[in-house]
Amino acid sequence: MNPLDWIGHVAGVCTTMAFLPQVIKVWRTRSVDDISRGMYSLFVFGVALWLLYGVVINSWPLMIPNAITLVLAGSVLVMKLRYTARKKP
Amino acid sequence: MNPLDWIGHVAGVCTTMAFLPQVIKVWRTRSVDDISRGMYSLFVFGVALWLLYGVVINSWPLMIPNAITLVLAGSVLVMKLRYTARKKP
Repeated sequence: MNPLDWIGHVAGVCTTMAFLPQVIKVWRTRSVDDISRGMYSLFVFGVALWLLYGVVINSWPLMIPNAITLVLAGSVLVMKLRYTARKKP
Repeated sequence: MNPLDWIGHVAGVCTTMAFLPQVIKVWRTRSVDDISRGMYSLFVFGVALWLLYGVVINSWPLMIPNAITLVLAGSVLVMKLRYTARKKP
């Protein structure tokens, strides 16, 4: 592996793990009012494309973190939709 | 430009523009309770590294969107810190 790929790996670990505290926070509080549905809808779609781009250019620093981010950001999106729906009459 | 780079460009547009509705939402409501400070701290740092990685491997689909994401996610982080601080006595 190219040593420079490590920059991408560390970047991927940070931007991927970043969603974990948000997932935990929403999971605990069930409160999603301040979270933008538009953001997570577009973000999850975009991350899926990043994953595809990573596959196409054969870049592991793109593939691995984006696969995990897809799960984490996807979880926030699902919880946003569920907990918003529950509050409505 | 490699035609496959377009996948990366579209991915970058989505994950970058995704933060815009969140920035607007926080700007309007001034409400940041449900937003994780841990997430945005780690995410902004990670995006800065992605930008560096894009420079190093000379990938415009990485450089352009990550530069913009840095500004947008950075804005959410700054507002999170400010509006949380204001609420405390």
